[in-house]
Amino acid sequence: MLRTMLPDWVFDDGDRRFMALALAEAEAAALRDEVPVGAVVVAGERVVGRAGNRRRELSDPSAHAEVLALRGAAAELGDFRLSGCTLYVTLEPCAMCVTTCRQARIGLVVWGAPDPKAGACGSVVDLAGEPRLGPALAHRGGLEAEPARRLLESFFAKRR
Amino acid sequence: MLRTMLPDWVFDDGDRRFMALALAEAEAAALRDEVPVGAVVVAGERVVGRAGNRRRELSDPSAHAEVLALRGAAAELGDFRLSGCTLYVTLEPCAMCVTTCRQARIGLVVWGAPDPKAGACGSVVDLAGEPRLGPALAHRGGLEAEPARRLLESFFAKRR
Repeated sequence: MLRTMLPDWVFDDGDRRFMALALAEAEAAALRDEVPVGAVVVAGERVVGRAGNRRRELSDPSAHAEVLALRGAAAELGDFRLSGCTLYVTLEPCAMCVTTCRQARIGLVVWGAPDPKAGACGSVVDLAGEPRLGPALAHRGGLEAEPARRLLESFFAKRR
Repeated sequence: MLRTMLPDWVFDDGDRRFMALALAEAEAAALRDEVPVGAVVVAGERVVGRAGNRRRELSDPSAHAEVLALRGAAAELGDFRLSGCTLYVTLEPCAMCVTTCRQARIGLVVWGAPDPKAGACGSVVDLAGEPRLGPALAHRGGLEAEPARRLLESFFAKRR
């Protein structure tokens, strides 16, 4: 187990409710034949951005669920700085998504399954903690890791 | 001088022509009161994406010139993979932009002025060369560094 994966009792009911929404976005992405990852941005108790992966559909290299949810939230709040916000995402974010969270000054990232191939919160690289990029990006991993992992596994099994 | 800054004779007429377009995008960004950085994506000899920074205007944390130009190019070509393309950008890209270039499989980045505060091609961190993120992102720095730097300097001088 990765040191970034936390035990389940760390998370509260709010965390579980928002991660359930992120999982629903991931399931919707699978139905669109996109790699099933979903993300939700929350300000206080309010959902201000939510998205699933749409990279193929939009032909947009930046269209991971996290970046689309951040863009939606920033547009909704009228500010590219999302300092008070939390991002929930079903998979450990990649380097692009972690650095976009840092650009957006996201307060906290809560993620689900670890990504041993591209995770940038400790699995492959630790760009969340990289001190030369400014204040560290706070994050907690491992919430609903199992359903998030199963979604990805069955998506890639069908593609083979 | 950074080791990533190359002497002027490394670059050819095509490089200079495309960097001039990127500088024009940076100037246009300054007129919109955005941090003046411009970028152009080229496939062969054809410009397939071009943009200036629009982060404030769009309230979009990802709306650096590079990401907007990559998104435009990918939409134009109908593919999020831009393997054969070159990105010209007036300033050394930040961590978000370098990792987005890597996601887009950009073939080469040619950049202008070094960024001692946030450059991710060697000035602050080297995410272009980070081997754990897959094949390195090829890049050459220092083309038209002076006009690119002057644009930024006069923009920030006016703001003080």
